[in-house]
Amino acid sequence: MEADDDVPLILTWDDANSGLLSEETERRDENGGNYDIVNNAVIPTPGPQHQRAQNASLRHSWEMNYQEAAIYLQEGENNDKFFTHPRNPKAVAAYLFAHNHLFYMMELLTGLLLMVLSLCEAPAVPSLRLDVYVHATLELLALVMVAFELCMKLRWLGFHTFIRHKRTMVKTCVLLLQFVEAIVVLIRQTSHMRVTRALRPIFLVDCRYCGAVRRNLRQIFQSLPPFIDILLLLLFFMVIFAILGFCLFSPNTADPYFNTLENSIVSLFVLLTTANFPDVMMPAYSRNRWSCVFFIIYLSIELYFIMNLLLAVVFDTFNGVEKMKFKSLLLHKRSAIDHAFQLLVSRQRPMGVSLKQFDGLMRFYRPRMSARDRFLTYKALNTSGSPMLSLQDFYKFYEVIGLKWKARRSGEHWFDDMPHTTFLIFKGINLLVKSKAFQYAMHVVVAVNGVWILVETFMINSGLSSFKFVPWSYIVFLTIYGAEVLLKVSGLGPVAYFSSGWNLFDFSVTMFAFLGLIATALDMEPFYFIVVLRQLQLLRLFKIKQRYRNVLDTMFELFPRMASLGLTLIIFYYSFAIVGMEFFANVVYPNCCNTSTVADSYRQINITIDNKTVLQEGYYYLNNFNNILSSFVTLFELTVVNNWYITMEGVTSMTTHWSRLYFMTFYIVTMVVMTIIVAFILDAFVFRMNYSRKNRELLENPEDENGIVFEAEVSRDEALATLELYKQTYLGPSSLSSLQGLLHAMDRSGHSCLMYLGRRSRTKSDLSMKMYEEEIQEWYAEYSRENLPKEGQSLEQELGSPFSDPQLNSQTEPYSIN
Amino acid sequence: MEADDDVPLILTWDDANSGLLSEETERRDENGGNYDIVNNAVIPTPGPQHQRAQNASLRHSWEMNYQEAAIYLQEGENNDKFFTHPRNPKAVAAYLFAHNHLFYMMELLTGLLLMVLSLCEAPAVPSLRLDVYVHATLELLALVMVAFELCMKLRWLGFHTFIRHKRTMVKTCVLLLQFVEAIVVLIRQTSHMRVTRALRPIFLVDCRYCGAVRRNLRQIFQSLPPFIDILLLLLFFMVIFAILGFCLFSPNTADPYFNTLENSIVSLFVLLTTANFPDVMMPAYSRNRWSCVFFIIYLSIELYFIMNLLLAVVFDTFNGVEKMKFKSLLLHKRSAIDHAFQLLVSRQRPMGVSLKQFDGLMRFYRPRMSARDRFLTYKALNTSGSPMLSLQDFYKFYEVIGLKWKARRSGEHWFDDMPHTTFLIFKGINLLVKSKAFQYAMHVVVAVNGVWILVETFMINSGLSSFKFVPWSYIVFLTIYGAEVLLKVSGLGPVAYFSSGWNLFDFSVTMFAFLGLIATALDMEPFYFIVVLRQLQLLRLFKIKQRYRNVLDTMFELFPRMASLGLTLIIFYYSFAIVGMEFFANVVYPNCCNTSTVADSYRQINITIDNKTVLQEGYYYLNNFNNILSSFVTLFELTVVNNWYITMEGVTSMTTHWSRLYFMTFYIVTMVVMTIIVAFILDAFVFRMNYSRKNRELLENPEDENGIVFEAEVSRDEALATLELYKQTYLGPSSLSSLQGLLHAMDRSGHSCLMYLGRRSRTKSDLSMKMYEEEIQEWYAEYSRENLPKEGQSLEQELGSPFSDPQLNSQTEPYSIN
Repeated sequence: MEADDDVPLILTWDDANSGLLSEETERRDENGGNYDIVNNAVIPTPGPQHQRAQNASLRHSWEMNYQEAAIYLQEGENNDKFFTHPRNPKAVAAYLFAHNHLFYMMELLTGLLLMVLSLCEAPAVPSLRLDVYVHATLELLALVMVAFELCMKLRWLGFHTFIRHKRTMVKTCVLLLQFVEAIVVLIRQTSHMRVTRALRPIFLVDCRYCGAVRRNLRQIFQSLPPFIDILLLLLFFMVIFAILGFCLFSPNTADPYFNTLENSIVSLFVLLTTANFPDVMMPAYSRNRWSCVFFIIYLSIELYFIMNLLLAVVFDTFNGVEKMKFKSLLLHKRSAIDHAFQLLVSRQRPMGVSLKQFDGLMRFYRPRMSARDRFLTYKALNTSGSPMLSLQDFYKFYEVIGLKWKARRSGEHWFDDMPHTTFLIFKGINLLVKSKAFQYAMHVVVAVNGVWILVETFMINSGLSSFKFVPWSYIVFLTIYGAEVLLKVSGLGPVAYFSSGWNLFDFSVTMFAFLGLIATALDMEPFYFIVVLRQLQLLRLFKIKQRYRNVLDTMFELFPRMASLGLTLIIFYYSFAIVGMEFFANVVYPNCCNTSTVADSYRQINITIDNKTVLQEGYYYLNNFNNILSSFVTLFELTVVNNWYITMEGVTSMTTHWSRLYFMTFYIVTMVVMTIIVAFILDAFVFRMNYSRKNRELLENPEDENGIVFEAEVSRDEALATLELYKQTYLGPSSLSSLQGLLHAMDRSGHSCLMYLGRRSRTKSDLSMKMYEEEIQEWYAEYSRENLPKEGQSLEQELGSPFSDPQLNSQTEPYSIN
Repeated sequence: MEADDDVPLILTWDDANSGLLSEETERRDENGGNYDIVNNAVIPTPGPQHQRAQNASLRHSWEMNYQEAAIYLQEGENNDKFFTHPRNPKAVAAYLFAHNHLFYMMELLTGLLLMVLSLCEAPAVPSLRLDVYVHATLELLALVMVAFELCMKLRWLGFHTFIRHKRTMVKTCVLLLQFVEAIVVLIRQTSHMRVTRALRPIFLVDCRYCGAVRRNLRQIFQSLPPFIDILLLLLFFMVIFAILGFCLFSPNTADPYFNTLENSIVSLFVLLTTANFPDVMMPAYSRNRWSCVFFIIYLSIELYFIMNLLLAVVFDTFNGVEKMKFKSLLLHKRSAIDHAFQLLVSRQRPMGVSLKQFDGLMRFYRPRMSARDRFLTYKALNTSGSPMLSLQDFYKFYEVIGLKWKARRSGEHWFDDMPHTTFLIFKGINLLVKSKAFQYAMHVVVAVNGVWILVETFMINSGLSSFKFVPWSYIVFLTIYGAEVLLKVSGLGPVAYFSSGWNLFDFSVTMFAFLGLIATALDMEPFYFIVVLRQLQLLRLFKIKQRYRNVLDTMFELFPRMASLGLTLIIFYYSFAIVGMEFFANVVYPNCCNTSTVADSYRQINITIDNKTVLQEGYYYLNNFNNILSSFVTLFELTVVNNWYITMEGVTSMTTHWSRLYFMTFYIVTMVVMTIIVAFILDAFVFRMNYSRKNRELLENPEDENGIVFEAEVSRDEALATLELYKQTYLGPSSLSSLQGLLHAMDRSGHSCLMYLGRRSRTKSDLSMKMYEEEIQEWYAEYSRENLPKEGQSLEQELGSPFSDPQLNSQTEPYSIN
């Protein structure tokens, strides 16, 4: 086969090529680089022994190239910068060790373990308290793991790159600090004030699996400068109004809110969150009715104008940042593909990647992918039908890589192979289920059920007992829904049925409702709240209207991002919770805070009214920092903002007035995160709605609604040739079973070619591709303009790899000579 | 002059033309229309007597045309639909009567009077209480005024159009109702339950001057459908969670929030506003710590997700509505210009408007405009330099009409005419003031002053007395600012200085600071809060940074819209205040509401602590509906939302639980309005920021920063010719003084031509024009495509006027014949 003689255009990690191409090794030493160009591809007539050795060596160097190309593509996918690219086989070993799911899992678990430890360290959750030596030992263990991970990283990156990598350096410093502290704790056998535990989330954030959280944090920091500008404006007006308020209201001795300048500022800060309104106004208002003007103006300027301005500015920045992020990700991927392409082409055919090379790459890039899918992916990329993949074809790599391949069924229905009578029955059901009339009928049923349930719900007055009685209407409707599910499953086939999100939704709602019915029938007490599922049936109503479908579709698309934003918030919570616990654990308790204005909220006394003793509880002592779980709940309450000043004042009255700083800082931080969450939701929805306006036909096409579809047609000859090719490339026969399966399927169906469909769900990135279509072309043009003048050179050069030599490259003979 | 022989292409209001063109009058009767085409412009050789009479008649018909064109342009400007266009001279008289500032003012005052009456009607503000017969008589008077206005409208519109005009019909109905009620009150000499007073704002909203409020209301109603959709989703989840909460928490007898299903729903509704958090959670939380999960999930879904979704959906709709509104306004204006143009061209030259005709139009459209400015406006429109205005030129009418004209100074500086020594001094000052060094030095001074004031402010602890002492630093800085103002005024000249908004800002801040100094020096007690103005100096800091300048510029541009939105909110407040007063006046008082859970907030008791009697006040009885001012404050508190349930529960406990409906409705209404305000601010800022990104050079050009500038160069010959023309058109010499002034100025300066600059401030519409540049071309193309096939016809036909006759128009001979 001719492919066997192909020599890679670029040879990577040169130690491996020592046996071969001796003229290059000499030159390599001059350059000190790891990339060499094979100058003379036509090797002077060697003996058969030499030929075999050379073939083995050539094969080995191809394998090395495949691996490096796979690493490049992985870096492109993960948005790893290329300056961390491994530079020699030792580094590659470390890289491969540090880049697999086992290692990632270990990283994640270590990070989680460190965070979870705070449940058991004093002040611990009572039921989870551990002895000091236990949790300190656990901590040391986890830290050793982290140190081990860092060592692997050091091996892979090399010392120079390692100290240039900021995130890793911060992690190392924190690690050292934590080490020292953990050892101190072990020696003293008691915990000291360990505020540095607030830095623990760093270990979690640095995990591969927390990439989304890292991106969120970056986005938050990028949105900060404009945010801070407007915040200053906000605080400035606050101070001005505080001075004015102090002047106006301090003569009133009954007014505790403005009696000193500090109180005045704190009152107006709390008023900014509206938490003490209208109480803060009342003493002044009862003296002079016109004093309300002060508060109305303050709130109008601060709350209704500047706070919204804040949102506007963050939204605007967020918009820009999202787009820039998308652009840089896109160009990074493109450059990764450029790198990989250079490594995959051969000297003989420098403009294309053959199936053999693509397959070699995929064996490293996706080791679990079956031979058939590798072949189909190649077919999907190869739109031009030429024997090689051009660079333009190859640019679609990331769009194609996630596809799940399935043969298009020869018939339309799942019941085509059944006996004739059965076929007719199912065909009838199929037609029924697909008819408009059936759908409208179901909508009507749902609507009637909706009204029914609403009316019924508002008739409930007698408490729980009424929930235990199942009304007949419920059983009737449930039967109809059950019948609908059965009809649909049998008419469309289980696979087609469950591939639609809305059908899944219907199915699960109906299933849950059945469960609820069974629970009620069996009178299972702990599950009684499952009766609420009856009302959940109403959710079906929302699929009738296009707007709700849009909203819910967007919700599902956004869910991953929302979850990562939630996680980001939890990481902030964690740090604040640790600080809160260190400073405020056990400072509030029932009947504390008698010196503050909020003493009532902390009171727990028995009072006698009409000869009955009633426990009057303020409950706020429950909002404390006594352990990490309580702290989280307290912080959530502070996030919701209402009445947060009661917690603040309570804690302040039991400690110093500097404690307010903690609460105010927390408020501002959550304000940032919350504003960004709002901006994110706004952005995502407005984007989605614009998108659906732009591509109305696309969204209305039910085929495309579920995602991206690629097609690949495979003829018998192609499949046979591929099988032959694969057999030659020293693979165990077991890995070829998928391809052989393809051939068997062809034999069975009797068709000379089979159509395969690759599907994946649509991501935000796909939508962005569509939305920014024109701009993307500009970006690409700009990108290639920047890279064009050096096109003759190795691409590594431009991207900062210090090991390639432009002189060498410019000396190479033009390709046309070969 | 040739212009005297010109015959209008279209003759309007044909009664006036009876003497002239007898052949047309015959035809008119056939058509019943008011527009006639002069078929034969070449009138058969008449005698001199006849000639004079015909000239007078021709002049008269031109005048009628000018007037109608002016009315069209006015309708375009005011966005009045053309179906309300007056159709005969009687209607025109009524139209003119009803369209001048005196009439508008009367409308406005009547509307205001009706609204202000509620201050004096029971339950009245104590100091403004009037006897029943007084306020009822006043009301009747105002209603008679409204009826008179409606009669004028009836005369102008005609009965058919009148009853087709929805807003006017609603107004009429409300008027009748109010009449009956007012008479009933007068007869019974006591007020009955008059909820219909809540409809009074209709009279105000219908005023010409409240057009912006009307547009806001329309926009709110247009944004409602998507809002309601999401609201339903919100309420749906609320009900589901209410049932679940009822199931979970009703066994806990210490939990008053979930003991019935109604309480459960109300608690969760209030929780949606966060007003009862964390109190609502506390009883359950103290029983079982995991119950917080219920509340966290509820708030995450409802408050943090769906509420933001609401904003996203409204924002998106708002965006679309804004654009559509802009489009329809733009096309309406264009069509008004088309109409006016048709009325201004003559048979002889149907493609252009001459200066004479333009001047005639302007005399009706802007009666107060000087002859010079009319001429200059014509010059500004006439960009091609041809003797006539083409339709394309005329389309710029609305851009040019608001310009303020001023001669460009022959020299650069205001002190050019001064003696040489003085000139040199001022020139030096001018150079100094304009130098970068001076500006940076001032920035440094402001920054130092800022830090100084902040430090000083935080040193204040001893209350008011410290404000009375003026620190030396204050005097030093103020002196510097004073010197700066003096230097700038003398260097740039007062006119140039005050034409910049930022200089005005500097000037006023400095002036106020001086006032504050004087007030402190004179120890004027009532003005002591003027010391706060010291801190206002810091506002100067904000002009240093580009972002703040952008923000503040945008603020000023938005101010009119913001004010109209505020007014809209007040109108909603008014209606709710009236309803509140009718139902809840005097229901809450100190120590009321003892049966409710919020009794504490209404308590006013003397308690003895440590042998001292202290008045413990809940103050919430102050939040009542006892008169309209109190109601407004109460409604503002409800808008701010915090602790609103205390007011709700207080009122509910003294009335029925249906009262909650009032408060909940109010919450939802203000939520709509507030969401729209937020959407508006977001939209405006994002728009502005996009704009400034798109046209960075434009905003950085200081010339353009202050607005739109047009230029017109006038030569001596032109001016003389125009003067001659004006003298012929039977005007008193007094009105020509401005033109003669222009000629004198030319003589004085010795130049043969003078350059005039027309300026106006930039509006949102100008920004939109720039932003949607490409789309506007599409809209115009679409608009003219729609109108093109009927171009030969009268434009009125297409726009729905039933009085023009296409047959007639298609019978007219082509223009080329004349």
